[in-house]
Amino acid sequence: MRRFVAHSARNLITRRRNNLTTCVLQHCTFPLRFLTTASPGYLSGHVASAGSASAPPLTLDTINPKVLKCEYAVLGETFILAQRLQQELKENPGSHPFDELLYCNIGSPHSLGQQPITFFREVLALCDHPVMLDRAETRGYFSADAVKRAFQILNHFPGRATGAYSHTQGIKGLRDTIASGIEARDGYPADPNDIFLTDGASPAVHIIMQLLIRSEKDGILCPIPQYPLYSGSITLHGGSLVPYYLDEDTGWGLEISELKNQLETAKSKGITVRALVVINPGNPTGQVLSESNQQEIVEFCKNEGLVLLADEVYQENVYVPDKQFHSFKKVSQSMEYGEEDISLVSLQSVSKGYYGECGKRGGYMEVTGFSPEIREQIYKVASMDTCSNISGQILASLVMNPPKVDDESYESYSAEKDAILSSLARRAKTLEDVFNSLEGVTCNRAEGAMYLFPRIELPKKATEAAKAVNTAPDAFYARCLLNATGIVVVPGCGFGQVPGQWHFRCTILPQEDKIPTIVSRLTEFHKAFMDEFRD
Amino acid sequence: MRRFVAHSARNLITRRRNNLTTCVLQHCTFPLRFLTTASPGYLSGHVASAGSASAPPLTLDTINPKVLKCEYAVLGETFILAQRLQQELKENPGSHPFDELLYCNIGSPHSLGQQPITFFREVLALCDHPVMLDRAETRGYFSADAVKRAFQILNHFPGRATGAYSHTQGIKGLRDTIASGIEARDGYPADPNDIFLTDGASPAVHIIMQLLIRSEKDGILCPIPQYPLYSGSITLHGGSLVPYYLDEDTGWGLEISELKNQLETAKSKGITVRALVVINPGNPTGQVLSESNQQEIVEFCKNEGLVLLADEVYQENVYVPDKQFHSFKKVSQSMEYGEEDISLVSLQSVSKGYYGECGKRGGYMEVTGFSPEIREQIYKVASMDTCSNISGQILASLVMNPPKVDDESYESYSAEKDAILSSLARRAKTLEDVFNSLEGVTCNRAEGAMYLFPRIELPKKATEAAKAVNTAPDAFYARCLLNATGIVVVPGCGFGQVPGQWHFRCTILPQEDKIPTIVSRLTEFHKAFMDEFRD
Repeated sequence: MRRFVAHSARNLITRRRNNLTTCVLQHCTFPLRFLTTASPGYLSGHVASAGSASAPPLTLDTINPKVLKCEYAVLGETFILAQRLQQELKENPGSHPFDELLYCNIGSPHSLGQQPITFFREVLALCDHPVMLDRAETRGYFSADAVKRAFQILNHFPGRATGAYSHTQGIKGLRDTIASGIEARDGYPADPNDIFLTDGASPAVHIIMQLLIRSEKDGILCPIPQYPLYSGSITLHGGSLVPYYLDEDTGWGLEISELKNQLETAKSKGITVRALVVINPGNPTGQVLSESNQQEIVEFCKNEGLVLLADEVYQENVYVPDKQFHSFKKVSQSMEYGEEDISLVSLQSVSKGYYGECGKRGGYMEVTGFSPEIREQIYKVASMDTCSNISGQILASLVMNPPKVDDESYESYSAEKDAILSSLARRAKTLEDVFNSLEGVTCNRAEGAMYLFPRIELPKKATEAAKAVNTAPDAFYARCLLNATGIVVVPGCGFGQVPGQWHFRCTILPQEDKIPTIVSRLTEFHKAFMDEFRD
Repeated sequence: MRRFVAHSARNLITRRRNNLTTCVLQHCTFPLRFLTTASPGYLSGHVASAGSASAPPLTLDTINPKVLKCEYAVLGETFILAQRLQQELKENPGSHPFDELLYCNIGSPHSLGQQPITFFREVLALCDHPVMLDRAETRGYFSADAVKRAFQILNHFPGRATGAYSHTQGIKGLRDTIASGIEARDGYPADPNDIFLTDGASPAVHIIMQLLIRSEKDGILCPIPQYPLYSGSITLHGGSLVPYYLDEDTGWGLEISELKNQLETAKSKGITVRALVVINPGNPTGQVLSESNQQEIVEFCKNEGLVLLADEVYQENVYVPDKQFHSFKKVSQSMEYGEEDISLVSLQSVSKGYYGECGKRGGYMEVTGFSPEIREQIYKVASMDTCSNISGQILASLVMNPPKVDDESYESYSAEKDAILSSLARRAKTLEDVFNSLEGVTCNRAEGAMYLFPRIELPKKATEAAKAVNTAPDAFYARCLLNATGIVVVPGCGFGQVPGQWHFRCTILPQEDKIPTIVSRLTEFHKAFMDEFRD
């Protein structure tokens, strides 16, 4: 086991320091060389710069510097190394001290064996090929409510044309269903015209950033640690990430005093803060906000005139009995705040929850408290890509209106859903306990979402070894872990953290039969690592 | 029929002149007020600006000016008016001088009755719900090659997990299939690592613009007329559209002398031109480039060091025997240019062709002649949205590898495909002839794509009437046409045109049984319009 450090050094990739780093994020570097096999022609080295070329050659010095500056850690260095190791294992079994990669790096449940919810897939298949609905003999192979639902959905499409572009915001009938689902969830009205269906939640984030950011003088308050889509999108659109730190000691608590401090600090630097991003349940941190905390946040945004961008894609992923998900829309409505009080964007996705249908790229944003003229602008930007994919739209309507008690599918649907959620809760607890048993590691519980974000006190010798290979200490730890065990995690530097602290994000998604292997490999590795580097 | 002008005036929408117009595009205005029903709260008018608000209120003056500046005509004013008329007809039949809207505004074949290709939908349904594959009794309802293909495709997904995120560029096995399809089409090798699967072709355009554009001093050569995704994306990313005019008199010819002139003009203004956009077959103009012309274009890009962004989404839509589609990759390979000579991005989409699956949002870009370090940056931007939707990925692999002669589906597949393409050719010819029969109208043939772009000489009285209602003359004509007949077209001002000339884009997509109605309504309207406004 001691050979991991040397092994890690061998795997080191030539890295380029990016001098344009965002204010608060510690960087892990983002080298992608090993991602695809370069065609031989590339090796000749000069491109689009022949002869009398008048345009500047395409180099890192001549592309958009905002592109160069942005980072996306989830598919970054560690992931790329993992892909390489996987390829090496395939070509040369036994070449590494493990026989399979254990991916704990990305919130993609199906890639680790979670099965889709049968009812959802039945409806999708029927909508893709409606001839199966029209024939009694094929219809009989599907549950009665899937058949009924497919008929209802297809009726929302003139001529059943699921192959046509939809309204830019999505098919109206599906938005009606989603609005009803939001009403049922919150107990407050929802307007289908406030819903924009999107390909997953990411495009919604880009649209809002694009709308709000004029220059680096516009700031967006983001939690640290945060899901790096936010830092990446802010950077791409040329704005400033204004960090607010979640308090690890109080279970990743969100303190209003911290928001106020950071807002004032940003103002003193001439930055106009335009929005506050809240991820609830948290990614990568897994905490679930209390309702009273959410009320404070709403009040803060209202008073400061900030758009509240509420990432609520993990709304179905709550694992502890003392916490409950409340949407920010519900909270602000319960405070009797309406359209004129607060601009609110709520994100939902089909990729998370118990469904975990990442590959379908379905999602929506519910947009309230924006004037009609601003809404026109949001619509216009969305309309440039015409509409989101229809299967994703249909699936978004299904997750917001799943089978009900009297439906034929209800029993199997509930069994599938409960099995997934209870298993996730067990896995979260097991991994939390393991992390807390390791020397120098502390880990808050995963109240929700799909992640644990343990903190690791690295010995000075380890941070020096990391420095020697020009790598952040937690990226060094993650790389050593990967090389020694095949376990893939994302180093904390990709999410942001208090300077000098080190973490990594570990999903709770490997199936339960893999958990014992992860536990034993992780424990053994950590002990060996500490033995090697203990001061 | 004469009441259309008054009717049009009644329909006028309060418009705001956008002073930030792009250099060459004439604007039609883009008011979206009627798009969705505003919630009552909006009417109170002030949002996110209560009390001690420190952020500026969200108004058109405080959002990103690039968002305000960009326009997207296809879903613009005329389309929004059409939606309103449709609603009015539904609520109050007989309220307009027509009983249905005839949508000739958007390239969405299925929305006008075109049926999906059966084989494609069989495979999609089987992949959505693989349990149908595993049961002999359900498998029997599908063609043998659809079953075989679904098995093959699912084998590319570890654990058959079509619900997982894929590699950012798309599932490798599907990219292999697409690369083989490109090789079969071109007769030159294609590398699956050069392919990035995307949600339709639009995201690829944004990625490339994002990569290349640093400021308004970076220019992109675009055809005029052009598909407004390009002007919109360039504006959103803060660059300059450098126009080159297609020559209407030579069937929308693309002259290298014009490219050179415009490049020099741009340079003299301090603009660095970085890329050339070519749409072939043309949108909105419908021309198909000759191979020799393509060779000149490749040579030009090579010599000037320009990225060639080849929009080839209409590659299956060629209707005339004297023209043929050649990909720019094939043309540059045939000139023995390789990776080191020219940076080329080729776009393909499942939305067009004979398949027309717009709602599936499938597509890809094939990226050649970029250095590995630039490719890393392209990958990084793409990775922020993780991956494109899997159904769209599967469909993209199917359109690039449809049934072959010996497959069970081949006969029905060919019959469906040929019926669609031959009907499109007939519709193109009929509409071209009608346009050319109208007073003051000339129309080039649609050699390919899905559009005609007739030019209309508007009498001075008509242009003055348009001016009086603060509207571009062709937008005025399109609005009058819509109000009088229910026919929806997109005014030429949304695509760009030689100043002082007027056009509109009309799709060839209404089903053949609708064509006589369109012909008679259009003819009658045009005569009445000219009678009213003839100088």
